[in-house]
Amino acid sequence: MSIIIEAVPNFSEGRRPDVVAAIVEAIKAPGVLLLDQSSDADHNRSVVTVAGAPDAVLEGAFRAVRTAAELIDMFSQRGAHPRIGATDVLPLVPIEGITVEECVQLAHQLAKRIAYELALPVYMYAAAATRPERRRLPDIRKGEFEGLLETIHTAERMPDYGPAKVGSAGAIVVGARPFLVAYNVYLNTGDVAIAKAIAKTIRESSGGYPAVQALGLLVEGQAQVSMNFVDTNVTPIHVVYDAIGRLAADQGVSIDRSELIGLTPRSVVFGAAAHYLKLPDLTPARTVEEAVRQSLISNL
Amino acid sequence: MSIIIEAVPNFSEGRRPDVVAAIVEAIKAPGVLLLDQSSDADHNRSVVTVAGAPDAVLEGAFRAVRTAAELIDMFSQRGAHPRIGATDVLPLVPIEGITVEECVQLAHQLAKRIAYELALPVYMYAAAATRPERRRLPDIRKGEFEGLLETIHTAERMPDYGPAKVGSAGAIVVGARPFLVAYNVYLNTGDVAIAKAIAKTIRESSGGYPAVQALGLLVEGQAQVSMNFVDTNVTPIHVVYDAIGRLAADQGVSIDRSELIGLTPRSVVFGAAAHYLKLPDLTPARTVEEAVRQSLISNL
Repeated sequence: MSIIIEAVPNFSEGRRPDVVAAIVEAIKAPGVLLLDQSSDADHNRSVVTVAGAPDAVLEGAFRAVRTAAELIDMFSQRGAHPRIGATDVLPLVPIEGITVEECVQLAHQLAKRIAYELALPVYMYAAAATRPERRRLPDIRKGEFEGLLETIHTAERMPDYGPAKVGSAGAIVVGARPFLVAYNVYLNTGDVAIAKAIAKTIRESSGGYPAVQALGLLVEGQAQVSMNFVDTNVTPIHVVYDAIGRLAADQGVSIDRSELIGLTPRSVVFGAAAHYLKLPDLTPARTVEEAVRQSLISNL
Repeated sequence: MSIIIEAVPNFSEGRRPDVVAAIVEAIKAPGVLLLDQSSDADHNRSVVTVAGAPDAVLEGAFRAVRTAAELIDMFSQRGAHPRIGATDVLPLVPIEGITVEECVQLAHQLAKRIAYELALPVYMYAAAATRPERRRLPDIRKGEFEGLLETIHTAERMPDYGPAKVGSAGAIVVGARPFLVAYNVYLNTGDVAIAKAIAKTIRESSGGYPAVQALGLLVEGQAQVSMNFVDTNVTPIHVVYDAIGRLAADQGVSIDRSELIGLTPRSVVFGAAAHYLKLPDLTPARTVEEAVRQSLISNL
C-alpha cells in the first residue's frame, strides 16, 4: 500500500512571479507532485499544494522554505493577509495509508530540520501543537511579524524549535491536520434566515457538531448552508446533511441539492454510501478498481 | 488514463490440479493480473479472474484457451455443470476507461484469433451476440457438448467464427458484459414470504427493474432479498434498496442491513452517495486520491 501525504505551504509573496516560480521550482523535489498553486496580489500570498510519499514531500517542503527564506524579506513585505514569516504556515495532511498522528511526527521531523539547518524559529500548530494555546493559527500569528520582533524573547512566545531570534525570513508555523472538506447545502427557499438558523444549530462554535464550521448565505437568490468540515472522521458530511434535512423540514423547507468545493477524501464518499445503504463494510477495498490496483502493486 | 478490462474464463476442469495450474500459468501473459481462481470438483469446473490492459488480457486469455484445448478432452469429461467445451465461456468485462461496446469489439477480435489459430468453433454471447437467440448462455449451451456433436452442421447452430466441426476441445462461447454485482438486503423479519414477495416485485423477469435478478431466501432465520445486478448502469443498487425499503414498510418491516458479495465497481458507490446527498457531480475525479493518481500518471 502506498503512503501519500499532502503539504499546503503558504508563502508571503503573491506579487513577484519570478519569486513564486523559484519557490515552486524548489518544492518539486523528486517524487513530489504539484497539485495546485494560486497567488493573490492583494494578500501578497501564494498557496502551493503538493503530494507524494512522505520523504519526497518533506524534502520538497524543506527546499521551498529555504528558497522563500532567501528571496522574501519580511522587513519590507506588506499585504492584506496576516503573516509571521516568508513561509507563513506549512500544514501536512494525510491522504492515503497514513494517519494524522503519523503526520504529526513528520511535522516535528520537518520542523527540526528547518530550525537547525536554516536557523529559523518554528512554531508547531494544529494536531502537532505542543501547547493548547498554540493549536489555532491566529493565536500563534497574533501581532504578526512585526509584533514577534518585540516578543519572541518572552516565555510565552518561545519557539518550539530553533532560535528565539527573528531575521528577515521571520518565523514559520508547521503542523498537521486532517483534510479540510468544503461542502454546501442549498435549500428550496430564498429565505436566508432559515439557512442562518440551521448553520447556527449545526456548527461547533454554537454547540453543534464537532469539527464543523457553518454559515447561512444567500447565493443567487437561494438560501445556502456553507460549511467547512475540518475533520470528517469526527463528523462525516452525511450526518450533517441529514440534520439539515430535518431542521429544514421543521421550517417547511427541503434540500434542493448539495455541492463540494474542491476535493474530498474518498472516505467521505464511502462513508455516505455505507450509511445510506446500511452496508457497514463498504470500503475502497471492496471495489474492483482497488482490487486491480492492489494486485498491480503486489505484482511490481 | 489507464484502460483496464477483466476476463473471467470458465474451464471444464476442476479435478486435476496440474491441468488447472497449467491453464493458470498460461493465462499469466506479461501484464496480466491474476485476481482470483476457484475450482469445484463436483462441477468439474474452474473459474479464473484476470485483469489488465486489453492487449495483455486478450493474449493471456488466448494462451489459456489454447492450453485448455490441449489438456482437456471433452469426449471423456464429466461433471455436474453444463458445458460445451474445454474453455466453456469467456466473458470480457469493462473495468476502467472503457465501455461494454468497446469490449464487444475486443471479444470479436479474440474470437477470430481463437477460431483461426486454434480451429475451434466460437459462439458470441451477451452484448457481443450476433443474433438475439444467442444473447443468453443457456440457449447457446442447450444440448451441451454431446448435443453439439449432432447439431453443429445445422444453420441454427452455425458458429459465429471457426469451423462447424467439433473436436476434443468442443466449442467456446465468447462475449462481453457489464460487471455483475451480487448484493443482498436483510429484513428485520424471519418471514421469508415477505422477502419472496419483494423479490418478485423487483426482479426483471416478473416485470420489475431491468437488469435485476432477485430471490427471497431465509438465511440464519432472517429474511433476505438476494440479488444480482447484471448492469448497474441500467439499474443502480440504491434505486432497488430504496424500493425494498418502501415495499418492506408496506408490510410493517424494515431493512436491517445490506451486504455485497465479492467486488463492486466504484461507480456503484459514487452513484449511491451522489443520490442520497443530492450531489450529482460526485465522481471519482472529485476525490483527492484520484487527483493524486492522475497527477502521478501525467508526471510519468
